[in-house]
Amino acid sequence: MPGTSETAPNDTVSEPCLRGDAALARAFTFLGKRWNAVLLGVLGRGPAGFRELSRAIGRISDSVLSERLAELTRAGLIARTVDEGPPVSVSYALTDCGGALMPALEQISQWAQENLPPEGRRQAGE
Amino acid sequence: MPGTSETAPNDTVSEPCLRGDAALARAFTFLGKRWNAVLLGVLGRGPAGFRELSRAIGRISDSVLSERLAELTRAGLIARTVDEGPPVSVSYALTDCGGALMPALEQISQWAQENLPPEGRRQAGE
Repeated sequence: MPGTSETAPNDTVSEPCLRGDAALARAFTFLGKRWNAVLLGVLGRGPAGFRELSRAIGRISDSVLSERLAELTRAGLIARTVDEGPPVSVSYALTDCGGALMPALEQISQWAQENLPPEGRRQAGE
Repeated sequence: MPGTSETAPNDTVSEPCLRGDAALARAFTFLGKRWNAVLLGVLGRGPAGFRELSRAIGRISDSVLSERLAELTRAGLIARTVDEGPPVSVSYALTDCGGALMPALEQISQWAQENLPPEGRRQAGE
């Protein structure tokens, strides 16, 4: 059977868990890229144009922002809409698929607010 | 006032959102690193030793796995326990802080199972 990349060499692990881990790995191939989760979080507040996104994120270069938007668009998480104007304007919005991620991102954000101190002191444990 | 890194140069964005975005960015500084989310997901099923983790993940080198475990331990998400034996054995388990992330990771995993096809076809959109 083709496409057995979901299985791993550990038969003590049950199928649903394996599937879950593979799914988690798939999600993090792009959620793991810098800015993507934050970008989705910003779009979770409503559609936005390129400049607005750039300002909301703050420290992202235009070329990286373009790349991330294109990637998230290809992945089907966001959609790009061109309003012919004049003036022409382009905006980005979450698709249903992207919107379905929001509750999980909100939970992670909540968790980080409760568990990760803001100022890089989280290396101080151990 | 020190520690104002939570603010961004966009005063149209309300405070709670900003705080949420900064928290999301903090969470993804390590959730974004390859294997970390999957590693936490595996530990979400119960404590495990190094070999067990290595087998469950499948394609991770020992040195990278060591590094990730050390990082997640420093961040307070997992704890390392040494059983003096004999034989000496070391196991890793989620802390309360790490455990508190599980519902969100499960949601992301569920989302990926519903929205991301397994075989790398998610570049096929657009």
